[in-house]
Amino acid sequence: MPEIAISVEEKAYALLKEDAEKILQLIKVQIDNLTMPQCPLYEEVLDTQMYGLSREIDLAVRLNLVSEEKGKSLLDNLERQLNILHEASQKSAQG
Amino acid sequence: MPEIAISVEEKAYALLKEDAEKILQLIKVQIDNLTMPQCPLYEEVLDTQMYGLSREIDLAVRLNLVSEEKGKSLLDNLERQLNILHEASQKSAQG
Repeated sequence: MPEIAISVEEKAYALLKEDAEKILQLIKVQIDNLTMPQCPLYEEVLDTQMYGLSREIDLAVRLNLVSEEKGKSLLDNLERQLNILHEASQKSAQG
Repeated sequence: MPEIAISVEEKAYALLKEDAEKILQLIKVQIDNLTMPQCPLYEEVLDTQMYGLSREIDLAVRLNLVSEEKGKSLLDNLERQLNILHEASQKSAQG
């Protein structure tokens, strides 16, 4: 096997990180376009997206491609970043 | 490798089939408990569940664990079975 080959484990983690990044970008676009974070649609989109990612991570964990810890920290990290975005947008709405 | 070993591809497909089956069972339970299929909550649960499964299948396809055709037919099959359940419940509600 050449060193350049990417294992299915590495690919799984890379894809999950990519998908988490996509959710973050989607929410950034929503905030930048002044769709208020208080809007129920925003909450619904976010919940659905987070659910989808959590199902992907769960599948990767069940396939032993990603450890439970790594999967959990991926989701926790995204939630933390979303909270920061959310708080910043609320502050700028008030200011 | 002993013959009994299951490849990650086989395991991925088995898990996806299991998850599709769980959605079908969930909807059956909802129908049996007379939560009407016209109820918006039912639609929302179903949409979210289907979205979650489609994300799992998409990940497995991107990892080359399941072919696009097999993934698509898994989802199509589930939709077909859900339609049958849905129609049956509407007929019994009318009858």
